[in-house]
Amino acid sequence: MITKEETGQYLSENKQRFLDELFELLRIPSVSADPKFKDDVQKAAQFVKGKFEAAGADNAEVCQTKGHPIVYADKIIDPNLPTVLVYGHYDVQPADPYELWDSEPFNPVIKNGKIVARGSADDKGQMYIHIKAFEMMMKNGGVPCNVKFMIEGEEEVGSENLEIFIAENKEKLKSDVIVISDTSMIANEHPSMAVSLKGISYLEIEVTGPNRDLHSGVYGGAVANPINVLARMITSLQDENRKVTVPGFYDKVLELTQAERDEMNKAPFNLDDFKKDLNIDDVEGEASYNTLERMGIRPTLDVNGIWGGYIGEGAKTVLPSKAHAKISMRLVPNQNHHEITKLFKEHLESIAPKSVKVKVTPHHGGMPYVTPTDTDSYKAAEKAFEKVWGKKPIPTREGGSIPIVSLFKDILGLDSILMGFGLNSDAIHSPNESFGVENYLKGIETVALFHQYFAELGKK
Amino acid sequence: MITKEETGQYLSENKQRFLDELFELLRIPSVSADPKFKDDVQKAAQFVKGKFEAAGADNAEVCQTKGHPIVYADKIIDPNLPTVLVYGHYDVQPADPYELWDSEPFNPVIKNGKIVARGSADDKGQMYIHIKAFEMMMKNGGVPCNVKFMIEGEEEVGSENLEIFIAENKEKLKSDVIVISDTSMIANEHPSMAVSLKGISYLEIEVTGPNRDLHSGVYGGAVANPINVLARMITSLQDENRKVTVPGFYDKVLELTQAERDEMNKAPFNLDDFKKDLNIDDVEGEASYNTLERMGIRPTLDVNGIWGGYIGEGAKTVLPSKAHAKISMRLVPNQNHHEITKLFKEHLESIAPKSVKVKVTPHHGGMPYVTPTDTDSYKAAEKAFEKVWGKKPIPTREGGSIPIVSLFKDILGLDSILMGFGLNSDAIHSPNESFGVENYLKGIETVALFHQYFAELGKK
Repeated sequence: MITKEETGQYLSENKQRFLDELFELLRIPSVSADPKFKDDVQKAAQFVKGKFEAAGADNAEVCQTKGHPIVYADKIIDPNLPTVLVYGHYDVQPADPYELWDSEPFNPVIKNGKIVARGSADDKGQMYIHIKAFEMMMKNGGVPCNVKFMIEGEEEVGSENLEIFIAENKEKLKSDVIVISDTSMIANEHPSMAVSLKGISYLEIEVTGPNRDLHSGVYGGAVANPINVLARMITSLQDENRKVTVPGFYDKVLELTQAERDEMNKAPFNLDDFKKDLNIDDVEGEASYNTLERMGIRPTLDVNGIWGGYIGEGAKTVLPSKAHAKISMRLVPNQNHHEITKLFKEHLESIAPKSVKVKVTPHHGGMPYVTPTDTDSYKAAEKAFEKVWGKKPIPTREGGSIPIVSLFKDILGLDSILMGFGLNSDAIHSPNESFGVENYLKGIETVALFHQYFAELGKK
Repeated sequence: MITKEETGQYLSENKQRFLDELFELLRIPSVSADPKFKDDVQKAAQFVKGKFEAAGADNAEVCQTKGHPIVYADKIIDPNLPTVLVYGHYDVQPADPYELWDSEPFNPVIKNGKIVARGSADDKGQMYIHIKAFEMMMKNGGVPCNVKFMIEGEEEVGSENLEIFIAENKEKLKSDVIVISDTSMIANEHPSMAVSLKGISYLEIEVTGPNRDLHSGVYGGAVANPINVLARMITSLQDENRKVTVPGFYDKVLELTQAERDEMNKAPFNLDDFKKDLNIDDVEGEASYNTLERMGIRPTLDVNGIWGGYIGEGAKTVLPSKAHAKISMRLVPNQNHHEITKLFKEHLESIAPKSVKVKVTPHHGGMPYVTPTDTDSYKAAEKAFEKVWGKKPIPTREGGSIPIVSLFKDILGLDSILMGFGLNSDAIHSPNESFGVENYLKGIETVALFHQYFAELGKK
């Protein structure tokens, strides 16, 4: 029922209020990781619930969990119509280091056309798009299909209670598709939608050498140094072509055809700009794949943290008892994170020299995910993007992982459409996080039109 | 003039007071690294000066420096007689982690025949041996030669001001030999004296990849991860025989003859006990050398500290901008630490891949040192050890470095005799540091007799 003309009209009339409301939400420091912000997290949940009510939701509730609450809301107009379930989160990453921000992280400002604040892109701004799109539809003839919303407060800390919530509320959450705005587009001139996400296997390694820290002068060169051993083990995990050497690692990897690779390489990408942005002289990665492919379709292995011995100022001549590393592997379809975790652990234990003891502890994992693109929901999203941004969105394969997406598939049997409106330059999780005003406002239109097109396609 | 009978007699009469005085000194937490103990460091210096005066020194002064003071004392009886310069230190390592101590680090107790306290062995106990030996000589006919003492308060933080002090006081410090008790013996049943010390080259490496921390999901596998690169560089510094690969590293190494190796391998050493003590299943080191040789006569390379990325609890998927390591190489005669530092820096810079930037910062260095054993002073020490401990001391080659020893040689032109009375089990720098009561008391006798024998040999 709603048209591009109506969305444009409503937007121009309510633009300032839409920004004001988002700013109000951004001022609440709902940092889920830090207990000191517990009350603010609750406050943000109440704010979100209130806005659903104001926009015309039938039910809007703050569902308490063992951790931070989940806001649920819905508007059911006809059980025979299709149902969209929107997922988002109102919690944010910690803002530190504060000193690297040019403005207060919880006092949003607009700078160069972008809203600068913690959570502006991830995910308050992108989540709030859906509340305002809901309002826009309600004020322009009502929603064209049933809508449900599930907005959590623990995304930045692992969504532990969300998994319990969805397992316990399968009926309540019954829908046809899930829509998530928590990813980014290539550029405003090149709208895109992520159609695949990598999985992850994250582990921690502890290497123990002697039973106590030793004097490196007395024992050095005669007793295995756990840091040197850890460095050797890490090095051996990749060969000179940067292939992961864990036996079986690539066995289930879905290899793309040359045609598929050609297709994905049509995405606009400039290696010089990429290097300049990161201030690096060269890239590095798996041989026979280019940078886009390494990021999008190849499994990878990175050390995310390493520590051992003396790491303070100055010098201490210690041969430490222990050394540690955190290592993650990003997985692609059809790798299974349980299998990869097992292979990695077994391999690492098998290559440990007798001179040390090695302990491998799995942290967490997630399955890779692929959005099917031959569905009504994907086509509706594609059409909505094209209508608002002037171009058909490029399907992209993302290196990031959103473990809940594969959980939704497993527990609810639902696919997710990743309608991300952010940009890579938004600096999510970093100081000076920002979100384009244009992205925010156009996002609202895009989401409203998506519902319209999805309802139309679903009717037949 | 003083005989073994006299030293034994005086010792048995004054044993308790000797322990009481040392305990009093051990109760002063003279931690040089921590500004919070600044006043205690001064207090310890005053205590030491007072004991020199009480024992009969002509001059005893607390010489202030830009850092902690140096205590100087002397007793000159005849300019024509030889002069011994004793070096020691009254400062101690920090005592943390306190929770690993079985008793208070600054409240000495005797347990299993050992004095347990921070500084008991390193170096208060060993240094105080010299003050009590001086007293013993003074009370038994006077010192047989001239004696000078230089007791510093910054050994545990690099002796920076000592170097200035000796350079400015060459005349005052003029002597025939330096005596230091700051090393250890093989065992009470196997007295030994260190005759060589390793040198050291200590550097810090910083590897910089992208200009900011990146999301390892988005960029992993496509951008060089500085931790992975650092691990590769560290690994490449040693080959599979654990030979250091820095070009030129071994060029000047003084290779021992087979006869010399056979001689040093006569020292009592049991590999099984060694492994059991450290709770390791295997040792590891340079091929074609055994454990004693690796520790004593071979140059080595150890990572003393490494850090980068996320090292807190849980998991964070960061591809960090930087990774760091502290690396030290122990050097043997005739390696030069300036040369080795330069070779290492050049090598590391040359192997850095284009995908990262590598910065190598030298921390400090010290030359290896060898005590000549064909001297009056060495022979006198050997004789004193034999007289008190019943066996000729085994000459040992130590892996540790005492950079000031080569400074003494360079600036004052003096050799050092390392009359160490500690044991490797004393746990210096660690919780529950201890020093044998027997080692303390026999040390006093040994030092007194050393002066006597040295004076006799020097007379001819």
